Amino acid sequence: MTEAKRPFVTKERIEELVKKYPTPFHLYDERGIRENARRVNEAFAWNGGYREFFAVKATPNPAIMQILREEGCGMDCSSLTELMLCERQGITGGEIMFSSNDTPAEDFVLAAKLGATINLDDITHINFLEKTIGYIPETICCRFNPGGYFEIQNTIMDSPGDAKYGMTKPQMFQAYRILMEKGAKEFGIHAFLASNTTTDDYYPALAMQLFRLAVELHEETGAHIGFINLSGGVGIPYRPDGHKPDIMAIGEGVRKVYEQILVPAGMGDVRIFTEMGRYMLGPYGCLVTKCIHQKHIHKEYIGVDACACNLMRPAMYGAYHHVTVAGKEDAPCDHLYDVTGGLCENNDKFATDRWLPAINVGDYLVIHDTGAHGHAMGYNYNGKLRSAEVLLCEDGSDRLIRRAETPDDYFATLNF
Amino acid sequence: MTEAKRPFVTKERIEELVKKYPTPFHLYDERGIRENARRVNEAFAWNGGYREFFAVKATPNPAIMQILREEGCGMDCSSLTELMLCERQGITGGEIMFSSNDTPAEDFVLAAKLGATINLDDITHINFLEKTIGYIPETICCRFNPGGYFEIQNTIMDSPGDAKYGMTKPQMFQAYRILMEKGAKEFGIHAFLASNTTTDDYYPALAMQLFRLAVELHEETGAHIGFINLSGGVGIPYRPDGHKPDIMAIGEGVRKVYEQILVPAGMGDVRIFTEMGRYMLGPYGCLVTKCIHQKHIHKEYIGVDACACNLMRPAMYGAYHHVTVAGKEDAPCDHLYDVTGGLCENNDKFATDRWLPAINVGDYLVIHDTGAHGHAMGYNYNGKLRSAEVLLCEDGSDRLIRRAETPDDYFATLNF
Repeated sequence: MTEAKRPFVTKERIEELVKKYPTPFHLYDERGIRENARRVNEAFAWNGGYREFFAVKATPNPAIMQILREEGCGMDCSSLTELMLCERQGITGGEIMFSSNDTPAEDFVLAAKLGATINLDDITHINFLEKTIGYIPETICCRFNPGGYFEIQNTIMDSPGDAKYGMTKPQMFQAYRILMEKGAKEFGIHAFLASNTTTDDYYPALAMQLFRLAVELHEETGAHIGFINLSGGVGIPYRPDGHKPDIMAIGEGVRKVYEQILVPAGMGDVRIFTEMGRYMLGPYGCLVTKCIHQKHIHKEYIGVDACACNLMRPAMYGAYHHVTVAGKEDAPCDHLYDVTGGLCENNDKFATDRWLPAINVGDYLVIHDTGAHGHAMGYNYNGKLRSAEVLLCEDGSDRLIRRAETPDDYFATLNF
Repeated sequence: MTEAKRPFVTKERIEELVKKYPTPFHLYDERGIRENARRVNEAFAWNGGYREFFAVKATPNPAIMQILREEGCGMDCSSLTELMLCERQGITGGEIMFSSNDTPAEDFVLAAKLGATINLDDITHINFLEKTIGYIPETICCRFNPGGYFEIQNTIMDSPGDAKYGMTKPQMFQAYRILMEKGAKEFGIHAFLASNTTTDDYYPALAMQLFRLAVELHEETGAHIGFINLSGGVGIPYRPDGHKPDIMAIGEGVRKVYEQILVPAGMGDVRIFTEMGRYMLGPYGCLVTKCIHQKHIHKEYIGVDACACNLMRPAMYGAYHHVTVAGKEDAPCDHLYDVTGGLCENNDKFATDRWLPAINVGDYLVIHDTGAHGHAMGYNYNGKLRSAEVLLCEDGSDRLIRRAETPDDYFATLNF
């Protein structure tokens, strides 16, 4: 067994980086992020108004947001502080999609102040928004939840009927009518039906549902549908043998449905939006950590200096993250290890029963695909501190884009 | 269906509190904490050297630590910052048990500086500790992992063989011999074999294993066993129909095993230690949150102003937390709700398909049993901020013991 997945950083480069940034740290690959963003834009270039709104929650770092902005992306915000991250960078108006649920009033206030496009999660949010900000914006989006199960070719992808998001179909019609009465002029439709899907059919299948709904909504209410937001859900292959979604095929799949449904209905001007996070960033980040202990008891354990506080997905979801031992990319994977962090939680394992090359104390391990929902889901359990974030720049240099937490950060909300 | 579990705070008191502290916040009950701590001490009073070392990770708040210290408890620390929490409060020496795993060198340095009792998780930590601090302390503890399955009356409680903690039995003997050679004079044994057990038999069954091992270790190596640390694992009934462990019966159960095994071996001077977190704090904290939205789609949703960032257990473990609608303690539970937070994660639900009284926007909900592993497991996903902690003092007054995070806290590690 050898490594099928290669990290974007070499052992030699890691050895330079650790002189400046102590492990553990999250490392991002600017080149990879830009190249991927360009492919995404190319895949949807057939739609003149296309825009990817990066799901800020995946990697809420201004440097990352700036790179994606330069590649033409807008920002999908879900909360007050995410909106503030945009505000501080001068990102406003149509560059922001505000997609949240169970939304606090103050979040709507800032979203409106910034001129963000607001995506209403529920029909009751119409009154709540109007009461909160005093008006209904001319451009507004409603989130759809079809209920039941979402299937692609008889495979159940997810159960929207059990999801807290969005409005039912009758509510969508009702919401549009109420919003039109209250002065809305341009409408959007949004739906999120499945997470981390790696089939190329997800967006086209979702588009089919949303486009049909758009035509119905337009025909029955007369609303002008300006855009359809396919939200996120396009996944990445965490496992070496996983399917990497073919974004060109996905874009083409959506185009076909667009030509088939929207164009004949005279709606060929509808802009397509996406709100990807994982697909935009996941593979272009990794967690660099050092083996600090090796333990031989009833099983073999490799103890690293990162823990679930730096990357929660394995502990929370039992998620697979590929692990490469830096410099041993071609060594035989003939040792069976659990790779553990130091939390007093037995689920604090980055890998369980994983075949890896022989690991020594001092080796650097690269935990793959932490670019999205990695640092962002960090916590401070057991008093552990969240790590730094470092950018590997396109020109080969490196840049600290978030410093590591210190004990003083951890104690900041206490008054000794 | 009516409420079988009552919160320690009334609607009237909540209405006073929210004037000073905006929801959501974690609320702690000083009286409950003290009374419970006294019962614990009483249950083990037969053992002259007994001490509960509060598992700081459960609720790392100085005010809480201070209350427990006044009740005679020591502190069980698992990391650098937890040790620092002790240091800043002048807690040192035998008052601290340092029980960690995959331990970084700097943590051992501070533990040694404070004179904490160090609990070694692995046999390799002997050399690591000696190399790190330059010596082996005279008092030292070793953590035991029996492997296989831990059963009580043919019921499998947990699988220590799959747990990353502790040393094998042969390693325990070897470790003791090496440590004695290196100057250790007083030994402890520690083991953690099951989490959140509500059977009264757990501690006695664990004690049986550890006491037998202690006798063997003493007889074979001549080591002086000063204490046996039963660690944590005593649970609380999260569900209304759950069994509340009878701490008096548990203490008495351990006493019987002590009389049966240790006393006849001439080891009647062994001190018993515990490291409880959940049992010490869990029921004496709650999360107070407000209903801000109500949503009727394919199911009925109550949206509150807290989310998984304030209490992760339901999202992470699917854990049950009882919910009381303040002021409706005696109303019929005739509405089926999902109680949700605002994260863009469908697992951000405090309750799923829960029968509750009719809830209105503006109602306060009390989420029970958040005193341990509640705020402590908080995170900032979706840019959400962690809440304040408030103490309901024994004299009826209230005190802010941790302020809520602000956006500036959230941005502290960024350099705009």
